Amino acid sequence: MAKFGVWIRRILIGRPLPSWRAAHERLPKFLALPVFASDAMSSVAYATEEILLALVVAGVAATENLIWITIAIAALLAIVVTSYRQTIYSYPSGGGSYIVARENLGTTAGLVAAAALLIDYTLTVSVSIASGVANLASAFPLLLDHRVEVCVVFIAFIALANLRGLRESGTLFAIPAYTFIVSLTTMIVVGIYKAATGQLIPVSHMDTISVQQPLTMFLVLRAFAGGCSAMTGTEAISNGIPAFKPPESKNAATTLLIMALVLGSLFIGISGLAQYLHILPKHSETVVSQIASMVFGRTWFYYVVQFAVAMILVVAAQTSFADFPRLSSILAKDRFMPRQLANIGDRLVFSNGILVLASLSILLVVKFQGQVHKLIPLYAVGVFLSFTLSQAGMAVHAWRLKEKNWKISMAISAFGAVITGIVVCIAFITKFTQGAWIVGVLITASIFLFTKINHHYRTLADQLRLPAGEPKDLLLQEVHNTVLLLVPGVHKGIIPALLYASSLSQDCRGVYIETDPTDTPLIVERWEKWGMGIPLVVLESPYRTLLEPILRYIEEVKKDRARHFVTVIIPEFVPAKWWHKLLHNQSGILLKWALMFKRDIVVTNIRYYLEK
Amino acid sequence: MAKFGVWIRRILIGRPLPSWRAAHERLPKFLALPVFASDAMSSVAYATEEILLALVVAGVAATENLIWITIAIAALLAIVVTSYRQTIYSYPSGGGSYIVARENLGTTAGLVAAAALLIDYTLTVSVSIASGVANLASAFPLLLDHRVEVCVVFIAFIALANLRGLRESGTLFAIPAYTFIVSLTTMIVVGIYKAATGQLIPVSHMDTISVQQPLTMFLVLRAFAGGCSAMTGTEAISNGIPAFKPPESKNAATTLLIMALVLGSLFIGISGLAQYLHILPKHSETVVSQIASMVFGRTWFYYVVQFAVAMILVVAAQTSFADFPRLSSILAKDRFMPRQLANIGDRLVFSNGILVLASLSILLVVKFQGQVHKLIPLYAVGVFLSFTLSQAGMAVHAWRLKEKNWKISMAISAFGAVITGIVVCIAFITKFTQGAWIVGVLITASIFLFTKINHHYRTLADQLRLPAGEPKDLLLQEVHNTVLLLVPGVHKGIIPALLYASSLSQDCRGVYIETDPTDTPLIVERWEKWGMGIPLVVLESPYRTLLEPILRYIEEVKKDRARHFVTVIIPEFVPAKWWHKLLHNQSGILLKWALMFKRDIVVTNIRYYLEK
Repeated sequence: MAKFGVWIRRILIGRPLPSWRAAHERLPKFLALPVFASDAMSSVAYATEEILLALVVAGVAATENLIWITIAIAALLAIVVTSYRQTIYSYPSGGGSYIVARENLGTTAGLVAAAALLIDYTLTVSVSIASGVANLASAFPLLLDHRVEVCVVFIAFIALANLRGLRESGTLFAIPAYTFIVSLTTMIVVGIYKAATGQLIPVSHMDTISVQQPLTMFLVLRAFAGGCSAMTGTEAISNGIPAFKPPESKNAATTLLIMALVLGSLFIGISGLAQYLHILPKHSETVVSQIASMVFGRTWFYYVVQFAVAMILVVAAQTSFADFPRLSSILAKDRFMPRQLANIGDRLVFSNGILVLASLSILLVVKFQGQVHKLIPLYAVGVFLSFTLSQAGMAVHAWRLKEKNWKISMAISAFGAVITGIVVCIAFITKFTQGAWIVGVLITASIFLFTKINHHYRTLADQLRLPAGEPKDLLLQEVHNTVLLLVPGVHKGIIPALLYASSLSQDCRGVYIETDPTDTPLIVERWEKWGMGIPLVVLESPYRTLLEPILRYIEEVKKDRARHFVTVIIPEFVPAKWWHKLLHNQSGILLKWALMFKRDIVVTNIRYYLEK
Repeated sequence: MAKFGVWIRRILIGRPLPSWRAAHERLPKFLALPVFASDAMSSVAYATEEILLALVVAGVAATENLIWITIAIAALLAIVVTSYRQTIYSYPSGGGSYIVARENLGTTAGLVAAAALLIDYTLTVSVSIASGVANLASAFPLLLDHRVEVCVVFIAFIALANLRGLRESGTLFAIPAYTFIVSLTTMIVVGIYKAATGQLIPVSHMDTISVQQPLTMFLVLRAFAGGCSAMTGTEAISNGIPAFKPPESKNAATTLLIMALVLGSLFIGISGLAQYLHILPKHSETVVSQIASMVFGRTWFYYVVQFAVAMILVVAAQTSFADFPRLSSILAKDRFMPRQLANIGDRLVFSNGILVLASLSILLVVKFQGQVHKLIPLYAVGVFLSFTLSQAGMAVHAWRLKEKNWKISMAISAFGAVITGIVVCIAFITKFTQGAWIVGVLITASIFLFTKINHHYRTLADQLRLPAGEPKDLLLQEVHNTVLLLVPGVHKGIIPALLYASSLSQDCRGVYIETDPTDTPLIVERWEKWGMGIPLVVLESPYRTLLEPILRYIEEVKKDRARHFVTVIIPEFVPAKWWHKLLHNQSGILLKWALMFKRDIVVTNIRYYLEK
C-alpha cells in the first residue's frame, strides 16, 4: 500500500529533489513573466468590463468616460510600479508589502498587509479560474452546466503543477501567457488599423439601454474602483525576487517594467476599442469577445483570442500559487502562521502552502457556485490596502535612509500611497454592501489569529528555553525506573518482553490481572519457573476489566516513588496472517491505547512474531 | 467524552456486575419458560399457515389433510421432546445437539450440528421479528411502509435487553409469553364451544380457489416439512440448562415438558379450528387472525389475540438471543470460534455473541426487506439436522453406557433420529429450489471456517508452548539494548527523554537528522553541554525526510549488534491546548507510527507537558 502511494506520488509530482538543487530551480526572465505576471495581465480581460458595468447604469452616454478612467488607472499603475521597482532594489530577498510595511511601519501594519494579500491571493485563484471557465463557456456552452467541476479540476491541476516545482511550472505556463500577449496585441493593432481605414462600424444602441440614474461622482468612482482590479497582481514580482536568476533584483525590476508596459498598453487598447465600437457589457458575452468578433468576425482567429483569454485567466491563478506559499512561509518563519507552512517539500517548494491555497480556493468556488461577479467586490480592497501600506513603508524607508535622490523616491512613494489609499477608501465605500465588509472582517480575524499563533510560539520558546547556567541541576537528578510487565499468560510469547523488562531496571515487576480466579494458580506456578526471579503482582478484577486495576496499581506505585518513571511493558504477539488478528482479544492493543495518552506513564510494546 | 460513553452505557445496559453474582442470575421455571420456549410456542402462529399454503395448490379439498399432518407433527414433537429430556439428564451442563453429537458421533458431526443451530438461530431472529411485525401490520396497516425499520428497532431492543442480563430480560419477556398462552387458549376454547353450539359457520369457497395440481405425495410431504417449522426452538432448553435454578436438570426437564404440552395443544387446536372453519391462507391476513375474527368478530379481544401473537413472535427472537451466544461461547472455548465470543461482559452475559447475532439478523432482515416467506424455506433443514444428530448421539450414548432401561432410551432416540432424519431429507428435497441449498452451502462454509480457526489456535498454542526442561537456555542469554534517542533539537523538552534514555542502557546514542545543515553547529554545540556525555550521531537527509535516514541507521546498528534490542526513544511535547497541535510539525507522531510497525524495533515515547 505504502509503496503504491509512493509510486502515485512520483508519477504526479516527480522524484524528490535534494536540497543542493535549490539554486538550479531559479527562473530566467522569460519564464518569470508568465509565472509572476499572468495575474496582472489577465485582469485586462475583465477590467474594461468592470468599468462599463458601473457606468452603464447612467446610460449609454456615460460610457464615454471609459477611456479617461482607463488612462487614470494606467497612470496609477505607473506610479505603483515605480514605487515597487524601488522596493525590489531595497529588499532583494523578496517579501513585498508584508516585509516593507513591517520593517518601516511596525508589525501590525505588516500583518494587515499580509492578511490583505493572503485573502487577495485566495480570491485571485477563485476569480481567475471561474472567469477563465466562464470565457471557455462562452465559446463552448456545453461547459455551462459543469462549471464548478471544471473549476475544481483546473485548480487541482495548477496545484499539482506547482507541487512539481516552480521551474517546470514556469515552462508549462509560458505558452498560454505569450499566446495571450501576442493574440491580444494582434487584435488591438488590427482593430485600430480597421477603424482607421473605416472598415469597423460602431454599434448603435439608441433604444436598447435606459438611463437608470444620473452619472454621479459616486458612479464614476465606483467605475474607477472596479477598473482598478486591473492592477491586482502587480505586487507579485516584488514578493518573489529569490525565484529569479541572479542578478535577482535587476532581473525582477526589468520583468516588472515589461509587465507594466504590456499591461498598460493592452488595457488602454482594449478600452479604446471598446469605446470606439460603443460596446456595452452583455450578460452572455464578454467585452473582449465582442471586440474580437467585431474585428475578426467569428473566424478561427476569434477562437484563438477567446481561448488565449480563457487560458491566461486559468494561468493567472499561477501567480497566487507562486506567492501565497512564499508569503505564508515568511509569516511562518516569523511565527505568525503554523510552522508547517515553512517546510520545504520533496520538490523544493512550500508544499503545505500550495495545498492550503488550493483547498481554500476550491471551497470558495464551490460555495459561490463559480459565479465570478459575486467575488470581485471582495477583491480590490485587499490589493490596494497592501499597495498603500507597501508604498507608505517605502516612503518612510527613503526618509530614514536618506540615500541619493531620497526626496524623489519618497515623493513618488508617498504620492502612490496617498492615491492608492484613496482607492482603498473608494473601493471600500462604493463596494461595502456588495461584500467589501467581508474583507474587513476577514482581515481583522486573520490578524487576531496571527497574534494568537505568535503568542503560542513565544510562550513555547520560553517554556523550552534551557537555563543559562550549568546543566547540573537538571541533569544530575537520579533516575529511577519502575518497570511493570503486563503478563497476559506465561508462554513463549512473553519471553522477549521478560528479557527486555529485566534489562531496563532493578525495580521490575510482573503484573497479572485476574479476571477468573481459577486461572491464577497455573500462572503463579509457571511464573515461579520462568519469571527470572521478578516478583509477580496479582491484581483482582471482579468486574473483568483490565484498565481500571492497572491504573489503580500505577497510582499506588507513583505514590510510593514520586520521582520515578513508570514504564509499562505490554507484550503482544503479531500473527502471521492478517485475519488471525480477528481471532484474538484486542485487549493488549486497547490497553496500549488507553495508557498511551495517560500522563507520566511510558508505554512500551514488545512484539513476538508468530511464524505461521 | 469517555465519561459520557460510560454514562450512556450505564443507562442502557446497567452497572457492571461482579463475577460472584453469577449464581444469582439463574432463572426460576416460570421465567425460564418465556426465555427458552417463546421460539417454539410462537411457531404455532405460522405453522398451520405453512401447511395450508403447501396444500392449497391442490385445491380446497386437499386442505382436509391439515389436521392429520398436524397430529403427525405433534407426535414427532412428543418423540423429540422425550429424547431431549434424556439429554437434559445426561448432559446437565448444557450444550444440546453440539455437545451430544460431538461426544458420541465425533467432532465433525458436532460441528455440523453447531453450524446448523447457529444458522437456525440467526434465521429465527429474522423470521420471528419480521413475522411479528407482519402481524402487527395486519392490525395497523400504517406500519407496512416502515416494516424494515420497525424490525431493526425490535432487534436492537431485544439485543439491548439481553446485554442487560438474562434474569432481567426473563421478567421483561414473561408478560407477552403468558398473554399469548392465555389468549390463544381462550380463543381455542371459545372457538370449540361456539362450534359445538352451532354458532360458527364455516366459510364457503366453491368458486374462489382453482386446483393447480393434483394432491401428490410430494405435496403432502412439503406440507409436512412446512408444518415442522412448529418444532423449531425445541432444543433451546437443553442448551441452556446452566441458566436454570438448581436442581437445574429437573427444572429444565419439567419446563421442556410444559412447553411441549402447551405447544402441542395450541397447534392442534388452531389447526383443528382452521380446518373446521375451512380457512384458507390469504395474502393480506394471517390464519390466526382469520380464526380470531370469526370466533370473536372484530371485538377488543380480537385485538388482544393479534397483539399477543405479534408480541410472542418478537419475543421468540429471545430464545435465539439466549442460546446463540451460549453455543458460540462453547465453540469458542473449544477453539472453533474466535475466543472473544467466550468473553463474559460487564453484565455477566456473552456480550460479543449477542452483538454478532443482532448484526447478522439485522443484515438478513434488511437484505430480504422483511419478507418472511422467503426466509422460512431456509429454516427447517438446519433445525431438523441438529435434531437428527442430537438424537442419534443420544442413541449411541445410551448404547455405550448401558444404564438402567438403556434399551428403551436407545429405541426412543433412534426412532426419533430416523424420523427427524427423514424430515431433513423431505425438507431438503421439497424446499431445495426455494433456498434450502443455501443452508447446505452455509453449513459447509461454517465447518470450513471452524476448522481453519481451530487450526490457527492449535498452531498458536504449539508456537507459544514453553519447553519442558529448565528455563536456562531461553532466559540466560545476555540482553543488550541499544538506545537511540531522536533529537529534534536541544531544548528543555528533551530533558526527560535524555534522563530516561541514559537510565536504560550503557549503549545510548543521540540521533539528529540534519535536514538543513545550517542548524547543525548549534545543535552540536548545545549537545556538548547538555548531552550528558552521550555520543551524538548526525544523519544527513538531503531529501529532508526523517524516516529513511533513521531506518538506514537502525539497519547499520543491527548489523553490528545482531542480538541486541534496538529501542528508539522519541521525545514529544504535549501542548496545553488542543489547537496548539495544529501549529507543530507532526513529524514525531508520524515517525512513531512508521516505526511502531517495523519489526524488531521497540519504540518508546517520552512526553513533555507544556504548561500553557
